[in-house]
Amino acid sequence: MSLLSNSLRLGVIGTGAIGRDHIRRCSQTLLNSQVVAVTDINLEQAAKVVADLKLDAEVYADGHALINSPQVEAILVTSWGPSHEEFVLAAIAAGKPVFCEKPLAVTAEGCRKIVDAEVAYGKRLVQVGFMRPYDEGYRALKAVIDSGQIGEPLMLHCAHRNPTVGENYKTDMAITDTLIHELDVLRWLLNDDYVSVQVVFPRKTSKALAHLRDPQIVLLETAKGTRIDVEVFVNCQYGYDIQCEVVGETGIAKLPEPSQVQLRSGAKLSNAILMDWKDRFIGAYDVELQAFIDSVRAGQVGGPSAWDGFAAAVAADACIEAQGSEQIVKVSLPQRPHFYG
Amino acid sequence: MSLLSNSLRLGVIGTGAIGRDHIRRCSQTLLNSQVVAVTDINLEQAAKVVADLKLDAEVYADGHALINSPQVEAILVTSWGPSHEEFVLAAIAAGKPVFCEKPLAVTAEGCRKIVDAEVAYGKRLVQVGFMRPYDEGYRALKAVIDSGQIGEPLMLHCAHRNPTVGENYKTDMAITDTLIHELDVLRWLLNDDYVSVQVVFPRKTSKALAHLRDPQIVLLETAKGTRIDVEVFVNCQYGYDIQCEVVGETGIAKLPEPSQVQLRSGAKLSNAILMDWKDRFIGAYDVELQAFIDSVRAGQVGGPSAWDGFAAAVAADACIEAQGSEQIVKVSLPQRPHFYG
Amino acid sequence: MSLLSNSLRLGVIGTGAIGRDHIRRCSQTLLNSQVVAVTDINLEQAAKVVADLKLDAEVYADGHALINSPQVEAILVTSWGPSHEEFVLAAIAAGKPVFCEKPLAVTAEGCRKIVDAEVAYGKRLVQVGFMRPYDEGYRALKAVIDSGQIGEPLMLHCAHRNPTVGENYKTDMAITDTLIHELDVLRWLLNDDYVSVQVVFPRKTSKALAHLRDPQIVLLETAKGTRIDVEVFVNCQYGYDIQCEVVGETGIAKLPEPSQVQLRSGAKLSNAILMDWKDRFIGAYDVELQAFIDSVRAGQVGGPSAWDGFAAAVAADACIEAQGSEQIVKVSLPQRPHFYG
Amino acid sequence: MSLLSNSLRLGVIGTGAIGRDHIRRCSQTLLNSQVVAVTDINLEQAAKVVADLKLDAEVYADGHALINSPQVEAILVTSWGPSHEEFVLAAIAAGKPVFCEKPLAVTAEGCRKIVDAEVAYGKRLVQVGFMRPYDEGYRALKAVIDSGQIGEPLMLHCAHRNPTVGENYKTDMAITDTLIHELDVLRWLLNDDYVSVQVVFPRKTSKALAHLRDPQIVLLETAKGTRIDVEVFVNCQYGYDIQCEVVGETGIAKLPEPSQVQLRSGAKLSNAILMDWKDRFIGAYDVELQAFIDSVRAGQVGGPSAWDGFAAAVAADACIEAQGSEQIVKVSLPQRPHFYG
Repeated sequence: MSLLSNSLRLGVIGTGAIGRDHIRRCSQTLLNSQVVAVTDINLEQAAKVVADLKLDAEVYADGHALINSPQVEAILVTSWGPSHEEFVLAAIAAGKPVFCEKPLAVTAEGCRKIVDAEVAYGKRLVQVGFMRPYDEGYRALKAVIDSGQIGEPLMLHCAHRNPTVGENYKTDMAITDTLIHELDVLRWLLNDDYVSVQVVFPRKTSKALAHLRDPQIVLLETAKGTRIDVEVFVNCQYGYDIQCEVVGETGIAKLPEPSQVQLRSGAKLSNAILMDWKDRFIGAYDVELQAFIDSVRAGQVGGPSAWDGFAAAVAADACIEAQGSEQIVKVSLPQRPHFYG
Repeated sequence: MSLLSNSLRLGVIGTGAIGRDHIRRCSQTLLNSQVVAVTDINLEQAAKVVADLKLDAEVYADGHALINSPQVEAILVTSWGPSHEEFVLAAIAAGKPVFCEKPLAVTAEGCRKIVDAEVAYGKRLVQVGFMRPYDEGYRALKAVIDSGQIGEPLMLHCAHRNPTVGENYKTDMAITDTLIHELDVLRWLLNDDYVSVQVVFPRKTSKALAHLRDPQIVLLETAKGTRIDVEVFVNCQYGYDIQCEVVGETGIAKLPEPSQVQLRSGAKLSNAILMDWKDRFIGAYDVELQAFIDSVRAGQVGGPSAWDGFAAAVAADACIEAQGSEQIVKVSLPQRPHFYG
Repeated sequence: MSLLSNSLRLGVIGTGAIGRDHIRRCSQTLLNSQVVAVTDINLEQAAKVVADLKLDAEVYADGHALINSPQVEAILVTSWGPSHEEFVLAAIAAGKPVFCEKPLAVTAEGCRKIVDAEVAYGKRLVQVGFMRPYDEGYRALKAVIDSGQIGEPLMLHCAHRNPTVGENYKTDMAITDTLIHELDVLRWLLNDDYVSVQVVFPRKTSKALAHLRDPQIVLLETAKGTRIDVEVFVNCQYGYDIQCEVVGETGIAKLPEPSQVQLRSGAKLSNAILMDWKDRFIGAYDVELQAFIDSVRAGQVGGPSAWDGFAAAVAADACIEAQGSEQIVKVSLPQRPHFYG
Repeated sequence: MSLLSNSLRLGVIGTGAIGRDHIRRCSQTLLNSQVVAVTDINLEQAAKVVADLKLDAEVYADGHALINSPQVEAILVTSWGPSHEEFVLAAIAAGKPVFCEKPLAVTAEGCRKIVDAEVAYGKRLVQVGFMRPYDEGYRALKAVIDSGQIGEPLMLHCAHRNPTVGENYKTDMAITDTLIHELDVLRWLLNDDYVSVQVVFPRKTSKALAHLRDPQIVLLETAKGTRIDVEVFVNCQYGYDIQCEVVGETGIAKLPEPSQVQLRSGAKLSNAILMDWKDRFIGAYDVELQAFIDSVRAGQVGGPSAWDGFAAAVAADACIEAQGSEQIVKVSLPQRPHFYG
């Protein structure tokens, strides 16, 4: 049997920036996958991507046609956020594995429907596009925690900083677009769930637009009692900077800084700080999608699950409520189905 | 005129560990001071210190006799905490400069009485023994902030960690003995006042004794809106570690780590971390007391004032209330007398 | 046309440790390649590798049969060092691209024969297995140099340290097995050639076996006048540690340390140092072989050339002479054929 | 007895920049010393320093008058280099302790005469103004070496870099003004002597004036076989930077960088590098002179001895010869008199 017949035949819904990037990744960089089908709300754009990347792929009229095509073995959902829920549910209905970019759904209720559908189907089909658990640095940090070298984690001090954001960026997007990555990766890092959240607003930076409260500090409490503070600062000017420090009973472990040439120059001993978030986790995107491809080919989807997407959405909802009330808000997650281990 | 007649004639009340150490400092290490009078609740101990350090000093029957002796130009109060207020008030009554180890008084009310007495006297006489503003690292950090290099400070992330504490150490001492240093130095660093405090209790470390809640996180809000989180963790095992990171509008400045030889050894690239707090700020004690001596000789006491001692005490009271209520507690400081600039 | 028919059909001569590792890499990790032919002096071992890795590959009777098989498009030479020259020459004779693990040949004269054969053939066919130019850290360092940020390079301070070596390791292997990597990568980094070498023997470590002089310091001079010192220390105990610092006219750039979790633990602030060389450049091996595969498929072999292999061999010979004489030894390289750019 | 009568009465010969600075230090910063006598080739300048610093000191007609004054207990020689030998010999003849700024004498022969005179006198009187052994960083480094943590030292990699030098700075001053500090401090650090030297000239920086060869690399061999390379680069542009890395049998210890605030700003994670050498060892000057004062008062001069000054001068002569010959030059030191321990 040829490698070709072994390679996973992917259909991609949504050919915007991230979709196009994943298509390039799956067709040129990763092993054992080919993109055989694409679609987009803008069919011309979909056709252009096929031409640009020289794909041997068919353009489908819509996501449902693509999902149900016998040519398509697995689906990538990279369309507009509000359409994710519909396409993921359709993929589950068709019994096909689906990788869905975040958010899994724009409401926690939507995520819950997907969880229910997947549980009803009886087997994991969904991987959510949270890439940080695939980052080498976070994996090394988790390995240190799991080794017991620092004892039980008691506190985490984190920061998520962007140089600037555009004018579309609103105060609640500090949760849904920015903090959402920490909400996912810290659950994974600690193997724990959130039970309460609080949001504190420091003095606003003069570099933020009038409508935006920036920075913000989000305080999270987990079921095991671990306390997490996350500084979200999206107009910090100096760089794209992700910090995560885990304080354990006997020691502290810190997420590695990206490796850089050390310079002595102009009265400074310095290392460059990245300015663009795309450079920070670029390696993790490859690993994440290769993991999806490999797991589908092996018959068992893994990685961030629909339940993880739901849990992050529930926590995000609580954070947004906490932004408004400036009170401590409980996070109530239903019992996790055994299905999710 | 001889140097001798120029050197400041100090009387020291309290010859316990810290008193003895300051006596040694003033008589052997610092410039232009001599210890001419000592007293202690235990007069034999006082006499022993005079003998051990070969001082040309008289042992007085009590603190009041010492304060009022014409031989004594300035007073160091290093006695038991609850006695500080009485001796500082007596020194003010005698119109003599007084350096008082922390706490200035064991209650905010006591501190206030001292402030009132000093204001009534009409001239600064009191320096409180907060040594961190004399630490080279904090001074360098303040210089960076004041230079405008990082813009206006918006957030501070701090930690105060000790390897272990003894069984006498109670939960409220995390405020009165540990956090008290941050309460002072951060006001100075930011040139700002606290307006609210909150205390959060993470999962307790298994290394702490049953009666002690450890670690704790103290959240402070300042008048300018700057938000401060201080991790207080007094059984962290690995070292005595003081962290302070100031997040400004355009950059972040971090308190230097103590300078250490870098080692490559045993599969580790490492720098030693201090285990004993005495080694961390030892240089600052010298600078602090020399500053007192120099300022008295120059006719104008400076450094941490009675007002600073009062402000720290008010904030500490609020923190202790917040430990109990786990609510956000307002910090109400009366108008600062013009006297304190 | 299928991807399969596009993937490069490789034949591998030598199925020992490194051969087996490259076979796994080409058949499981890299894109667009398949191993269709293998051979080894031990044919049973070759057959076992085919079975273990579930290859769809034929075992050939010897290297020449494999090279000349019409099934084989390109060759990997990973056999015993002294056999490299013969197989590379045979590949050139067959007009087939060949990736040869270092050394290209065990003598400079052998390397020269390969250069001559390749020039006579009229097109590059040979890539030598020097992987450091494919390491991210060295590439970042070269980018800094080439950017002009530090001005013209004047001096390089380098170190190549291993924790220990076995008893087979002799004094001259410090050149042929250890320094050889620097001899290659520094020429590439500086775009320069060596003109003289000197070897200095410091006090011997008590951790080295009786027959071995360890450490050694190799001093290199380049045509542009840049001076390089390389510490070679193969019983340094503490780790596998590669250092490279480039001192330019206006600044200094240093090879990044491998990225590691930073730990505060046991009175130390530390980062792990690798103990095993395989972990240090593992990513570079993948990039190096993928580059070979991609370049062959694109019709133009690139990377470290036969000339580079020859230049490294000539420099290594001079270093070995310098070990014996403890004098400065000239390095004489003939004119580089235009062929090599 | 008064403190005044205990304080050491110093006479200072030479009131130029360094002399004035030491006078200020001894009269205002250090303990137990007073400057009672000064002189200079320019008596007006000497008188001006007395007036400016409000000294209670007499201006003497010349160095000999000052040395022989019964008012003067100990001498500081901070005059023009070529006059040092004469005044140090006169101080020994007068049986008075003398602190002599480097160089002890401008020739090794001159240093030897001082050694002989001191040995004949029968007791140490001379301390040479090498301040690095009093630097905290070097002391910490020596403590690590002496602790045995890194085993026996085998190699040292050092650098001495200045941003720029003036046009008076000639090629041999890289030895006599710059390397001389390493020649002293490394002997002390290793408790060892030099047996050979070699100087290598890298490609010249375009930032150096035409007459100056810069950078230079000096290679030193010690009696124990330790090999030292010192990069001397006095137009490095970026900072005043002193590096010292000791490679031992089981680990490596590195001189601490000066402690600095760490900044995240403008796409860089950076620490300031000093630009002015005066800032680098300023603390060491205080410690050095206090040690002289304390040792004289205790009746036993210590610190860098006349022998150390002689040994450094002999090594410097060999380095200058090696600059000219570009050959390995032996360093021959006579047997150290038992007198120097």
